[in-house]
Amino acid sequence: MQRRCLEDNTCPVARSLDSIGDWWTLLIVRDAMFGIRRFSDFQRSLGLARNVLSSRLKKMVADGVMTMAPAADGTSYQEYQLTEKGEALLPVLVAMRQWGERFLFARGEPHPELVERVSGTRLEKIRVRDIDGRELEVADLALGTAS
Amino acid sequence: MQRRCLEDNTCPVARSLDSIGDWWTLLIVRDAMFGIRRFSDFQRSLGLARNVLSSRLKKMVADGVMTMAPAADGTSYQEYQLTEKGEALLPVLVAMRQWGERFLFARGEPHPELVERVSGTRLEKIRVRDIDGRELEVADLALGTAS
Repeated sequence: MQRRCLEDNTCPVARSLDSIGDWWTLLIVRDAMFGIRRFSDFQRSLGLARNVLSSRLKKMVADGVMTMAPAADGTSYQEYQLTEKGEALLPVLVAMRQWGERFLFARGEPHPELVERVSGTRLEKIRVRDIDGRELEVADLALGTAS
Repeated sequence: MQRRCLEDNTCPVARSLDSIGDWWTLLIVRDAMFGIRRFSDFQRSLGLARNVLSSRLKKMVADGVMTMAPAADGTSYQEYQLTEKGEALLPVLVAMRQWGERFLFARGEPHPELVERVSGTRLEKIRVRDIDGRELEVADLALGTAS
């Protein structure tokens, strides 16, 4: 895939895609959020070739999205964990998930749901709002310098 | 890039990435949200080769994210417009944008800001919340069947 480096681009969307825009990266973040820590477990979950997974994880550590540390159980395994920067991708993943649930599943088609852990209840729909909490649509937005 | 088709995957994140996970697709959606309608204007904005842009737009129309229609001004141009499904990607783009602003820009580094069009004020930070409006972190979430 032809791909320019957009790191110098001043659009924050472009710069984010430069870091996490790879197809696999967000699925690795998703798995890490659900407790996957080890290379072999990511590999099993994603069905990815070792070399592809290895290069993605290396880039994620270099980008500060994940850290690598010896396993907590004292074995010789290395474990990958999301950093604060990685965990902060939660709204991106939930927004993507909710879009998929709305448009890419048939009515009643079963899939695992993301719920609040203790109560087991659904999440609120993610919305774009102004600072007074009013929901905004595409037509309400502009690029500028905030006043 | 090696890429499995995840359309049959029951994870909504995976299915969304199957539709919009391409590097360029979200940048095309971004441009369309800011009023770009014509092939040549997308090409100028993104610096993309004609064949790459053409295949991306074709897939977006096939996926129902964009529609193609004769230009509103009566010229022979075709215009691309976001569908409801395409506009519903707004929370994904804003979440990605805010993540980039927080982690990928130096303090004070200038960039265009996304503002409410009339007041010119900033947007609220996108948060993941439960149905009672409480903000949730990664540790508060689980996969299950909503109660």
